[in-house]
Amino acid sequence: MPDLGALLSPQSVAVVGASPDTSIIRGRTLKVMLHHRYPGRIYPVSRSHAEVQGLKAYASVGEIPERVDLAVLTIPAATVTEELERCGKAGVKAAMIVASGFAEDKADAGAAMQKRIGEIARRYDMAVCGPNSEGFASMQARLCPTFSPAIETLDVPLIPERSGGGRIAVVSQSGGIGFSFFDRGRPREIPFSHVVTTGNEAALECFDVVDYLLDAGSADIFVLFLETIRNPGTFRRAAAKALKAGKPIIVAKIGRSEAGRRAAASHTAALAGEHDVYRAMFRRYGIIEGTDIEEMVDIAACFSAYLDRLPAGKRVGIVTASGGAGGWIADACVAAGLEVPELDPETRSKIDVHIPSYGTSQNPVDCTAQAVRKLGYSKLASLVGESERVDSVLVVVSARSAEVYERERAGLAWVGRETQKPIVMWSYTLPGAAPARILSEAGFPLIASMHNCARAVAAMAEYRALRERRNDAKPVVLARDEERVGKARSLLEAAGAVVCEYEAAPLLAQYGIATAQASLCSSVEQAIAAAQRLQRRVALKVQSPDIPHKNHAGAVALGVQGAEAVTQAYESVLASASKHRPGAEIRGVLVQSMAPAGIEMIVGAKHDPVFGAMLMVGFGGIQAELLRDTALAPAPISAKEARELLDGLRAKALLDGADIDALAATMVALSVFAAEHEERIAAIDLNPVIVHARGNGVSVVDALIVKRQDSP
Amino acid sequence: MPDLGALLSPQSVAVVGASPDTSIIRGRTLKVMLHHRYPGRIYPVSRSHAEVQGLKAYASVGEIPERVDLAVLTIPAATVTEELERCGKAGVKAAMIVASGFAEDKADAGAAMQKRIGEIARRYDMAVCGPNSEGFASMQARLCPTFSPAIETLDVPLIPERSGGGRIAVVSQSGGIGFSFFDRGRPREIPFSHVVTTGNEAALECFDVVDYLLDAGSADIFVLFLETIRNPGTFRRAAAKALKAGKPIIVAKIGRSEAGRRAAASHTAALAGEHDVYRAMFRRYGIIEGTDIEEMVDIAACFSAYLDRLPAGKRVGIVTASGGAGGWIADACVAAGLEVPELDPETRSKIDVHIPSYGTSQNPVDCTAQAVRKLGYSKLASLVGESERVDSVLVVVSARSAEVYERERAGLAWVGRETQKPIVMWSYTLPGAAPARILSEAGFPLIASMHNCARAVAAMAEYRALRERRNDAKPVVLARDEERVGKARSLLEAAGAVVCEYEAAPLLAQYGIATAQASLCSSVEQAIAAAQRLQRRVALKVQSPDIPHKNHAGAVALGVQGAEAVTQAYESVLASASKHRPGAEIRGVLVQSMAPAGIEMIVGAKHDPVFGAMLMVGFGGIQAELLRDTALAPAPISAKEARELLDGLRAKALLDGADIDALAATMVALSVFAAEHEERIAAIDLNPVIVHARGNGVSVVDALIVKRQDSP
Repeated sequence: MPDLGALLSPQSVAVVGASPDTSIIRGRTLKVMLHHRYPGRIYPVSRSHAEVQGLKAYASVGEIPERVDLAVLTIPAATVTEELERCGKAGVKAAMIVASGFAEDKADAGAAMQKRIGEIARRYDMAVCGPNSEGFASMQARLCPTFSPAIETLDVPLIPERSGGGRIAVVSQSGGIGFSFFDRGRPREIPFSHVVTTGNEAALECFDVVDYLLDAGSADIFVLFLETIRNPGTFRRAAAKALKAGKPIIVAKIGRSEAGRRAAASHTAALAGEHDVYRAMFRRYGIIEGTDIEEMVDIAACFSAYLDRLPAGKRVGIVTASGGAGGWIADACVAAGLEVPELDPETRSKIDVHIPSYGTSQNPVDCTAQAVRKLGYSKLASLVGESERVDSVLVVVSARSAEVYERERAGLAWVGRETQKPIVMWSYTLPGAAPARILSEAGFPLIASMHNCARAVAAMAEYRALRERRNDAKPVVLARDEERVGKARSLLEAAGAVVCEYEAAPLLAQYGIATAQASLCSSVEQAIAAAQRLQRRVALKVQSPDIPHKNHAGAVALGVQGAEAVTQAYESVLASASKHRPGAEIRGVLVQSMAPAGIEMIVGAKHDPVFGAMLMVGFGGIQAELLRDTALAPAPISAKEARELLDGLRAKALLDGADIDALAATMVALSVFAAEHEERIAAIDLNPVIVHARGNGVSVVDALIVKRQDSP
Repeated sequence: MPDLGALLSPQSVAVVGASPDTSIIRGRTLKVMLHHRYPGRIYPVSRSHAEVQGLKAYASVGEIPERVDLAVLTIPAATVTEELERCGKAGVKAAMIVASGFAEDKADAGAAMQKRIGEIARRYDMAVCGPNSEGFASMQARLCPTFSPAIETLDVPLIPERSGGGRIAVVSQSGGIGFSFFDRGRPREIPFSHVVTTGNEAALECFDVVDYLLDAGSADIFVLFLETIRNPGTFRRAAAKALKAGKPIIVAKIGRSEAGRRAAASHTAALAGEHDVYRAMFRRYGIIEGTDIEEMVDIAACFSAYLDRLPAGKRVGIVTASGGAGGWIADACVAAGLEVPELDPETRSKIDVHIPSYGTSQNPVDCTAQAVRKLGYSKLASLVGESERVDSVLVVVSARSAEVYERERAGLAWVGRETQKPIVMWSYTLPGAAPARILSEAGFPLIASMHNCARAVAAMAEYRALRERRNDAKPVVLARDEERVGKARSLLEAAGAVVCEYEAAPLLAQYGIATAQASLCSSVEQAIAAAQRLQRRVALKVQSPDIPHKNHAGAVALGVQGAEAVTQAYESVLASASKHRPGAEIRGVLVQSMAPAGIEMIVGAKHDPVFGAMLMVGFGGIQAELLRDTALAPAPISAKEARELLDGLRAKALLDGADIDALAATMVALSVFAAEHEERIAAIDLNPVIVHARGNGVSVVDALIVKRQDSP
């Protein structure tokens, strides 16, 4: 791994292509670096100038009198690879490439050049950021090699003067969006440590940067904007490390919609994976999903203020002087998954002595403007926070004029320091700069949107809960049984692209998943005999690799009883099959005992091109696709995770009284199977898995495996 | 109806309680009025001062030398009724009451005083606003009798200088929230006509104000904040009038999280909570629901700009210079129900000539910073808007520095005037005042939140579509059949509080709803005979007003065949019933033919205390409460509305191929029944209604009616 310290905290920087003309990127980048007083050494490299912006310039990187740590390449795309090679030869340890026109270009040449950049970076072990990057800003190093207008004209210090608060690092594949987080957060005195925009990621990726900043201890909270994840290994390593260290990651991943995906494909030439898979991966590592810029800044601001005092639960106390505003944010809290419980009588009586009879201490605590004037927001918030029934406090304020905050400045500072529960302020009027500053100095996040406020508090509570759960969880140990793996592998190899139910059954049996008793029959006589052996009502199902969706084809008959009915059903399912798909290869008709009724679930697995085997569970049987009530997790999963997935289903109450243990065991077994054979399996459906009453197990009454086209 | 013109556009105003001390409400209110230069006559009324803030003061309202239109009462609660009476006697036509401590007070005295205010207002036909109001601001009349800080220190004109754009009236039951819309919108040059805060609404209600402003033609868009609706008639009248006039209402109704759903006797009552009813009423009148302050201001700003050019559909073209930002907002658009289609080849080729090879004209149109510099946002937006595949255009901008907007000021103004499709700007960086002003002058809404931007465009499209649908729709004509009504009424009167299935059947039959064939039996022998008559498998159901939820009680047996099985089932259901509810009054056992399988729906009705009879439909049978996939509308409904409701269900695809005509007819019939007997019926469940394949109708296999406790 190259040294990212040379990139983000270099001792010396060459600016290749630097120009005296500050209206163009080549000049602006140097200007911004000088503006923010980088304390290291800067060497402009220019073919046409001996001096640039007051600094001696060099004709080439090779002529600089020291081996510089970082080369910032502000030169056209066509000359980038040549220059990078030159940097490598000159012993430069890191490079940042601004130019566009690489893999996002419609012409093939761009993609080829981008590939070359990756090769050169590897060859010289250089930390290369970009191309198509808007640069970065390291507040720690006071280094801002970027042409972003958000940094260029910044009229407040890079880091707020007040100390304290977790430092926020932004890492973004999009330059504009990356700096927009900073643009919106910095005027609110939110402490950023870095903004790094990684562009097309020819070499370094977003999670390489996260991993480095974690190791270096340079940031406490991460705000990420992703169009794709290129290397799942890097992602898993960095995400696990962050979770372990209690350093939250807040991420926006675009490509949720078809249209979003189209942009991802054409912009950074990235193929976006399916969003559900990303969501499952994020959930696995406690990564918080954001959906808008301000919202993510608000969430980060709350984490920054309360990283060491995250709420122990979802119960919120609300303090307000406006009844309407209090009621409204209570709704927003409930919508965000929080609870707004009535306060305990003891706390209520402590509050009641201060508020007039037209206020209420119930929760929301409508303490009226009168009590706010008398006691101040801080005292009221701390009174509510003392209740054992709340885990955090939301204070509804009108932060337009500084007067009221000036008056209680000392109280605010004291409560901000002493509170053991997060106190977050929501202003229903547009927050003014002066009140914002006073509240910020006291350590309180001030949020302009009610929904963001509720969402931020919920995110803190969820993060803490998930972290406690995960850190508690034993890792899934895959007791790999080579004999089992080998047997399953041979069966899989022997099967065609679509593995029918009768072929899937022995495969699944290797993993302890029993499908319903059945015989493959190739004549009516065999079918009648099989039905008699099973001694109960049976299902008849045509087995054909050409007809994976038997039900839709009418190639299934259910609840058949007696020789006559079996004969009729046998002929009917075959007729439907050949009508549905003339010429289909028919392997026979499976005669299977009918399972008793129960809750119909689907348990499945799929291979994701980025993250590998994923396990899915959901409601529905044949209605699964309509209900879309499913949950997903990277395989393999533990029994505990299986239960968590079931808990996440909308209609989970349908499973009350059902044999959840047996269902979870089936999920775990299938996840192990899918993970152990992920190089061969594209998708598995156990559909339906009928879940019976507690103690009565499950019946797996259909199974389908589709192999990967690139299966070895 | 009193004259609201005297309240909102008076020629003269008395300020009762006016004080020279501008640090208290009594002084501040007068100060604010003077600050905004109300051109009418102001008369301070004060017992202790002969002159207040430079104006001659009067000892009492009666001493003022003219009959004033409006009295603003800035006096304590205890003296309000007395003063109001005095105003009435003096011929004052309107009053505004600021004091708190009325119905919101824990003491009974407050509620009594509030009732008195209502009585006095009626007696003198006075337009009385409040109590507990924060006052109002009428931009038109330049009258601001309020102590709201949002108005007090306003440093921009009450109305923006540029003309044009629909005028926004805010009407709010909460003072703080009411003025917060103005506080956030006015600095963005959004044109407000009024902010009226109605407080406790002892006399005038929110929709009285809306109705007046509609009649007076004083506002074009309404932003409302409601804690409740007191008079459904006023609501219906004003809402229908606004829809007809094409004047959108954007409303926040709090109380979504209230638990009105607990322990309800019927599924319908449990499924349709208070907020669901409000939502159904809003949908009926095309009222747009808002969820946050800034979001509602953003929606209003878009309507204000494009009221005469609302988007004809949901297809959005996106123009961006940042690929990441474009992809992200495309996701947000799809999440908001919009579409982001690929542009047509003709439009694409017109765009392609202007953008470099690393941009794309697909949609989002990533035109790169280079093309923006060359052509300007306006030209690019208008190129995209010319495509027949889009109905509106979103432009992603970075509105931090004014320079780029200065440069294309003329182009922006031209496109803003000429465009026939809405063009809305989203800034990913924090919008600066100068760019905001230029865009506002050109007529473009500039929005800081991606989600609000998508939501606003979706709201405009939905509003236009709904309006076209509604204005097209024939009103539901209730062909009232007095004989039918009378018969049903007698049957209802004869029944107890809980009307069992066997009693409900003849009632429903009056309205053409046929329940499954059945006989009420009081012995095993009768049951066996009934089952034989029905000639197929039967269900046995205990009929008891004490056991409304028969299934949960185990008092139902399904699929019973043969005398032996009937005997066994008969005894078993009765045993379960008496075990579930010892001493329950048992009317007998209903023996009913089993219906063929199909899609299980619930069709229900409930009486809402505010809006009367509501019709509900949903998926689920016994799982209805778990699936919670339901839709609701005020009864009666038309067949067209019935289909719209079904269309709104999440799992509507389950009904593909089912007999939707028959289901819709059942819904219409039940809605008529519920509406014609709303004074008697609390709730009706037809659950399940089994919907068969197209042409095969529905089977209503259970019915329950719960009467209102106050039924005559």
